[in-house]
Amino acid sequence: MGLNIAQKIIKNHLVTGEMTAGSEISIRIDQTLTQDSTGTMAYLQFEAVGIPRVKTKKSVAYIDHNTLQAGFENADDHKYIQTVAEKYGVYFSKPGNGICHQVHLERFGVPGMTLLGSDSHTPTGGGIGMLAIGAGGLDVAVAMGGGPYYLTMPRVCKVELKGKLNSWSAAKDIILEVLRVLSVKGGIGKVIEYAGEGIRTLTVPERATITNMGAELGATTSIFPSDEVTLQFLRAQGRENDWVELLPDSDAVYDEHVVIDLATLEPMAAMPHSPDNVERISAIGNIKVDQVAIGSCTNSSYMDMMKVAAILKGRTVAQNVSLVIAPGSKQVLTMLAQNGALADMVAAGARILESACGPCIGMGQAPCTDAVSLRTFNRNFEGRSGTTSAKVYLVSPEVAAASALTGVLTDPRQLGEAPKIEMPKEFVINDNLVVAPAPEGNTVEVVRGPNIKPFPVNRPLGEEVTGKALIKVGDNITTDHIMPSNAKLLPFRSNVPYLAEFCLTPCDQEFPARAKANGGGFIIGGSNYGQGSSREHAALAPLQLGIKGVIAKSFARIHMANLINSGILPMTFENETDYDSIDMNDELLIEDAIEQVKEAGAVIVKNLTKQSEFSAKLSLSDRQVQMILAGGLLNYTKVSN
Amino acid sequence: MGLNIAQKIIKNHLVTGEMTAGSEISIRIDQTLTQDSTGTMAYLQFEAVGIPRVKTKKSVAYIDHNTLQAGFENADDHKYIQTVAEKYGVYFSKPGNGICHQVHLERFGVPGMTLLGSDSHTPTGGGIGMLAIGAGGLDVAVAMGGGPYYLTMPRVCKVELKGKLNSWSAAKDIILEVLRVLSVKGGIGKVIEYAGEGIRTLTVPERATITNMGAELGATTSIFPSDEVTLQFLRAQGRENDWVELLPDSDAVYDEHVVIDLATLEPMAAMPHSPDNVERISAIGNIKVDQVAIGSCTNSSYMDMMKVAAILKGRTVAQNVSLVIAPGSKQVLTMLAQNGALADMVAAGARILESACGPCIGMGQAPCTDAVSLRTFNRNFEGRSGTTSAKVYLVSPEVAAASALTGVLTDPRQLGEAPKIEMPKEFVINDNLVVAPAPEGNTVEVVRGPNIKPFPVNRPLGEEVTGKALIKVGDNITTDHIMPSNAKLLPFRSNVPYLAEFCLTPCDQEFPARAKANGGGFIIGGSNYGQGSSREHAALAPLQLGIKGVIAKSFARIHMANLINSGILPMTFENETDYDSIDMNDELLIEDAIEQVKEAGAVIVKNLTKQSEFSAKLSLSDRQVQMILAGGLLNYTKVSN
Repeated sequence: MGLNIAQKIIKNHLVTGEMTAGSEISIRIDQTLTQDSTGTMAYLQFEAVGIPRVKTKKSVAYIDHNTLQAGFENADDHKYIQTVAEKYGVYFSKPGNGICHQVHLERFGVPGMTLLGSDSHTPTGGGIGMLAIGAGGLDVAVAMGGGPYYLTMPRVCKVELKGKLNSWSAAKDIILEVLRVLSVKGGIGKVIEYAGEGIRTLTVPERATITNMGAELGATTSIFPSDEVTLQFLRAQGRENDWVELLPDSDAVYDEHVVIDLATLEPMAAMPHSPDNVERISAIGNIKVDQVAIGSCTNSSYMDMMKVAAILKGRTVAQNVSLVIAPGSKQVLTMLAQNGALADMVAAGARILESACGPCIGMGQAPCTDAVSLRTFNRNFEGRSGTTSAKVYLVSPEVAAASALTGVLTDPRQLGEAPKIEMPKEFVINDNLVVAPAPEGNTVEVVRGPNIKPFPVNRPLGEEVTGKALIKVGDNITTDHIMPSNAKLLPFRSNVPYLAEFCLTPCDQEFPARAKANGGGFIIGGSNYGQGSSREHAALAPLQLGIKGVIAKSFARIHMANLINSGILPMTFENETDYDSIDMNDELLIEDAIEQVKEAGAVIVKNLTKQSEFSAKLSLSDRQVQMILAGGLLNYTKVSN
Repeated sequence: MGLNIAQKIIKNHLVTGEMTAGSEISIRIDQTLTQDSTGTMAYLQFEAVGIPRVKTKKSVAYIDHNTLQAGFENADDHKYIQTVAEKYGVYFSKPGNGICHQVHLERFGVPGMTLLGSDSHTPTGGGIGMLAIGAGGLDVAVAMGGGPYYLTMPRVCKVELKGKLNSWSAAKDIILEVLRVLSVKGGIGKVIEYAGEGIRTLTVPERATITNMGAELGATTSIFPSDEVTLQFLRAQGRENDWVELLPDSDAVYDEHVVIDLATLEPMAAMPHSPDNVERISAIGNIKVDQVAIGSCTNSSYMDMMKVAAILKGRTVAQNVSLVIAPGSKQVLTMLAQNGALADMVAAGARILESACGPCIGMGQAPCTDAVSLRTFNRNFEGRSGTTSAKVYLVSPEVAAASALTGVLTDPRQLGEAPKIEMPKEFVINDNLVVAPAPEGNTVEVVRGPNIKPFPVNRPLGEEVTGKALIKVGDNITTDHIMPSNAKLLPFRSNVPYLAEFCLTPCDQEFPARAKANGGGFIIGGSNYGQGSSREHAALAPLQLGIKGVIAKSFARIHMANLINSGILPMTFENETDYDSIDMNDELLIEDAIEQVKEAGAVIVKNLTKQSEFSAKLSLSDRQVQMILAGGLLNYTKVSN
């Protein structure tokens, strides 16, 4: 039986387990990446593991999140990461060098390799045929130390692209269509593998837009073949030697099959407040726009920017619109500055932001009250923009630029002929913002600022797990709810005790105080609990507050892994109606917890308040059972070393 | 007797008073400018005055301070200012168009005219021969309404520039030398008027660097002649019709005379933590640098940026340095993007920030703990960078760029030949980010976000003024101490009740709570109390807390005016040793306050706790007496209308 691309890479990297969908496997990791908001914690954890030098083929530490730097904390974190990277063998990408996923694609990614990144949009690397997976910082720390990465063997969903995009339709519209069809839960437990004649019409940056935003499907990752288009891209990056061809076998088998006819796609938008709330621009109508933001790891490539510049050239942004543009990398910015495109953007009235994540992660450019904000980004969760009342629409760069000019949501087809941008034969290559690690790390002194606090570490599981249901939330709670990540909190990612004071406060202001007053307890969640960003702070902050378990209808993949890594029990209702039977402040009890967890499968949770009990599934591999018993991955790693 | 330039402009605009140094005069204001951090309040006050249309020749509202936008408050303020400007006849410079002083110089300033701006660096306009003065927002509001601006007739200090700068010495070094000679108090009550053969060697941007940073002398303003150099600048801006020649009479008389030989000036730095703590780079030595920041209203002109680009071209920023560059205006940025200079900066590793005030006002780019930060800015007060432990050195763009490359404080003379940059014959002119006011304002709806709160208004002076000495501070307290203005607080400039919770907290965390608990009282200050930024929030926040009077050894000019505008008594010790006799929490009493203030000159302050009394000078004009009696300028304006 032939293999698809995902299976081929997994097979090549398999360390343990059977390649049967649903069973736990572990794979060797070739490359890792971190960004600064998750990276500080990842390197603290790497230091705690106690290995003198990373064992990956290449590990890169990027600075792209906390680049506004409202206080000393950020620059301290940057310096910590720079020095710890230098010491332990990690390449350091300085602030200004660009967004991790964009830069990694340009300069470091290699088809057929595995990449583990402490950022949920790591699957961007799938655009050049990497198996690129987002994970918590601790998983990345372990991978840097040479440990395999454990995951559930995914099902593989073939998305077959037929035909060719019409003029003014964009890669963004393809992934929006996939989201419309599959929903934000549609990718859970799956790799989305792109195939079909249509993929040959898509450049690497377009493919990367699609794999990037595949994160919003909840997928393990997304991947394209490595083909002639990939070779051209790598050649233009001076890296043709990194290319290998990677195609599915002709008799490859997939678990699912979705067909999308590119020729039928119109310009679309994901409407507030979910990336799968997709509608055609023509159907939404000409709503007035207050802000347009172009950039992010989804749409900040040279090709994206050149299209935007061509649309803006010689025109002026509408009076009611603030247009901000953040090119994705130093390479992109340099090329735009050299060829005049940046001058065209500025002349039209665009505000140019630093090459970084910026407003996509709520670091700046919060729109005005009740604003309509069009963004080329990947998430439009309520409040993520920094303005709770804002309505964020996710759109292609073409829709964004056209709307910035008219001041209303605009189908770009009304602008006439679409700009034709050629992929450059050669990108401008200058890696002078990448600092190579020291040949001998032991002479490097790691610099730690005063905001860098010890992170919480769990204790081994006790005989009884007991506590109150401290909060009960609905479906689709994101990691933005669990651990808000705005311009005021993101600078504190290396200070979990401080961050914990804001844990789940978007749902309930009193939660942190209640959790502490009760010495910890349980969280009751709906379905898809923990979707969104990969931040393990969404597990560390509850751990800091004493949370012992989360009982939900279902979990998002990375968050569940982060809970296990922290030694927090991730349970799902055997019978979803039991969710309704629990009220806040009910006293819950798991007796003989160690035995029940060892037997795995399920635990009985007693509701002492209601004098009832229910069964909660505990879908843990043997290894995860050991982690829960040990009180998390770090304890487990130390025990098993 | 001949007149100098300052006297000529004052004479042309005199409304009331005698042109005798030290006596109160009032002058007609031709132009006003506001920026967004003071502007929201200024326009709220303008609305309170109740005039339907501004009466100036030109008023411009800039957005350049709160451009990071960590929350909805900033964008709401921008929208408020845009709509209120449109309604009342004010030109609106959108975010992205650049720093108010840079843009005003380029596009709006006119030699011989008066300019009142709600920003302490308004004197930048003196670079083209304007009488450009910084003031509180309420003064600007009154000026927009056609009211004259009241000030003490300044003494005029002639600074005669001889010779010519050596290669690698810069305009920044000239103003640093003036600061070294005169100190941060040396300009109080004076206009600094530049003269001598040396001025012909200085371009308008160089002159503007000097007049800009004249604010740090405490001067009323600084001014250059309007000559052939000015004409060339205005012609290159397409504004030669705005030019008038403006020279001192050949027999002009000055109150003071300072001579500076340009040929003797070396590259210099203002060392931590005061702009007058000036030393030669060669004498400071090669200290290691963590951050270099280039930009701000002092040094962000096209000429500055071109020099920096030429130094950086083909080189790479040192590994230990974060270099950030913010070109001063859309015009500058467009030109750098068109001619390749921006590409050179980016290629060398510079982080490009939006054209705005940015790190100069602590909005972002806070350096790391204990950092050495070189900045081309105008102030290096402790903590202003956002990092209390940081050591900020103020330097020329040349020193900044050279040091960014070497990683240590560097005398640029070691780089070899200095770059030669020509003033452009034509600047790129495109005012499409300036929105003209509506022809008929009454149809415009002013949009007010929820963070825009009513500002405090004082009550008429009572018979007795009594209260505790709530705080006692030392010399040179800045408005950054009184009303901190960092990335966390600057967004709240339209919410005085919130800001007041942080009033004087850099000196004493408990001050706001103590003031409120005691129902207000007195502040005891040292000399030069209230130096620095023009922010009237340094008066409004104390007013919000119930402060009735400040007793200090001496006051900075703008802050004293702001206190009077708020109806707060600004008293100075008749005998400075009385400062020592007061302790915190002493009960103070001014009996027969109305009579004593009316008699002016001085008041007797009883210290009930110490059972003593002392005399405090009250240097008020008749009009200021009326303002104090009425409870501030707004009450007074309403009474006298």
